[in-house]
Amino acid sequence: MEELRLVHEIQAALGNRSPRLRRWTGDDAAVVRTRPVAVTSIDTVVDGVHFRRATHSAADVGHKALAVALSDIAAMGADSGEAYVSLALPADFEEELELVDAMESLAKATGTTIAGGDVVASPVLVVTVAVTGWADSEEHLVGRDGARPGDLLGVTGRLGGSEAGRVLLERGEEEPAELLQRHLRPQPRLAEGRALAEAGATAMIDLSDGLATDARHVAERSGVELLVRLEDLPRPPGVSAEAAASGGDDYELLVAVPPQRRADADAAASLTWIGEARAGAGLVLLGPDGAVAGLRGYQH
Amino acid sequence: MEELRLVHEIQAALGNRSPRLRRWTGDDAAVVRTRPVAVTSIDTVVDGVHFRRATHSAADVGHKALAVALSDIAAMGADSGEAYVSLALPADFEEELELVDAMESLAKATGTTIAGGDVVASPVLVVTVAVTGWADSEEHLVGRDGARPGDLLGVTGRLGGSEAGRVLLERGEEEPAELLQRHLRPQPRLAEGRALAEAGATAMIDLSDGLATDARHVAERSGVELLVRLEDLPRPPGVSAEAAASGGDDYELLVAVPPQRRADADAAASLTWIGEARAGAGLVLLGPDGAVAGLRGYQH
Repeated sequence: MEELRLVHEIQAALGNRSPRLRRWTGDDAAVVRTRPVAVTSIDTVVDGVHFRRATHSAADVGHKALAVALSDIAAMGADSGEAYVSLALPADFEEELELVDAMESLAKATGTTIAGGDVVASPVLVVTVAVTGWADSEEHLVGRDGARPGDLLGVTGRLGGSEAGRVLLERGEEEPAELLQRHLRPQPRLAEGRALAEAGATAMIDLSDGLATDARHVAERSGVELLVRLEDLPRPPGVSAEAAASGGDDYELLVAVPPQRRADADAAASLTWIGEARAGAGLVLLGPDGAVAGLRGYQH
Repeated sequence: MEELRLVHEIQAALGNRSPRLRRWTGDDAAVVRTRPVAVTSIDTVVDGVHFRRATHSAADVGHKALAVALSDIAAMGADSGEAYVSLALPADFEEELELVDAMESLAKATGTTIAGGDVVASPVLVVTVAVTGWADSEEHLVGRDGARPGDLLGVTGRLGGSEAGRVLLERGEEEPAELLQRHLRPQPRLAEGRALAEAGATAMIDLSDGLATDARHVAERSGVELLVRLEDLPRPPGVSAEAAASGGDDYELLVAVPPQRRADADAAASLTWIGEARAGAGLVLLGPDGAVAGLRGYQH
């Protein structure tokens, strides 16, 4: 579709659900009346790397691109705000509006406004989303650096399903549908992230690269050792504990909570308790008998 | 370079020049204490479309990607703030740090902090930059929609040089250096944009697609007709008036100013006065004798 016409059709597909948005599509930049703290992340998905046009519909791509960016806002405990979307579109790609509609559906479901963007030609489909969330105070947010010895570790949802779904997709299989959906339509845990922050979470991260990798980031930034009981990892049927620890793209939240706030955290989100923090460094994965099943220190 | 190591090397190359930035690289998202109004834009440059690796160094690409995004902040009259950078890198691209260093140089020169980013693999080099600028009030900003009949039209700098430079580059020519530099290292007019906003500008846009296209956006959004005297367009030696009107990628500012604020605008930025707004719609390009040389209405 001709670029200017496409831009106008995209604009017509978008809803403004932010009373603080003063200027948006159609000017040089979007203008937003702020809350005290802005929380911003940018994420890119590339055809052949993060999805494949052969196995992912345009709607899947649009959903995933926004979900991945919103997941970072969730992991800070911020409220979602505005998304800025860059579409780099190959000449043979004709499903721009399907992509945008799916993105807009997720935006609506999460209270996000797609407030600006860029549309460019490209040899390969690349979608980049920058999202800004908001908070009333820095103290309402949760970084990766606050876990303390004694804190309990919990996760939302179930792990390993997205990677299992990806393998099924590559094989052309259509069941189990739950696993395929986990891969194709990840859900950013915005409500859970916000509620866990209010419930006293000391550290939080979204599981994009897999627990075994992402938990190390928390351990390193917090200056603690994390122990994770592999057998306690929540997982869909057919997914092994090892696969649940290593599979990426689940976009669930890993959270550290002081023991005395455990009940508050359980009330805030449906959590599975999988381990704890103690003095030390790195990540220890414990097997079924409590033996060390895997040990990962810092990689740099 | 291995992705995690590259991310750490990039982080080490960046300077934090924002006292309001509370968390940045190394967490799920950047956290910024806000000013009252946020101004955000996102822009993407793609190899083979907006630059060519054959003619543009990695440093040129990094500079341009940030300059293009900052130019939108300039056109709103906002102060620059934080940039969020996505690098989609082909396996054979090894000059990531040269790209980042050039971007960081421009960030430093413009008071911008590169506060977050994403690094992904890609078959083609794609760089996306989202920039947030700041203002203390919406009234301090200038959109595309405020030009009124009688307003004077001015431009910063000279037009058409970037397109002329691009053609020279494609031919493998190295002179005149000014034209090549205009194409390879566009300068976002942040100081000029801010000063012109304070000097009473009623509408402003950055010239990315060329004056003949961008002026129409202002005419349409403001609900006026713009008259532009082609012969008055400032241009480098060797560039025709028509080429100055149609060439893109100059990233100069087109500004509308009420006649009574002309002296204030001249004090705010080095401007050339090229025309005026009147009641009507669309853009009229006037030839040397005042005859209509070209007429462009709305395209949709």
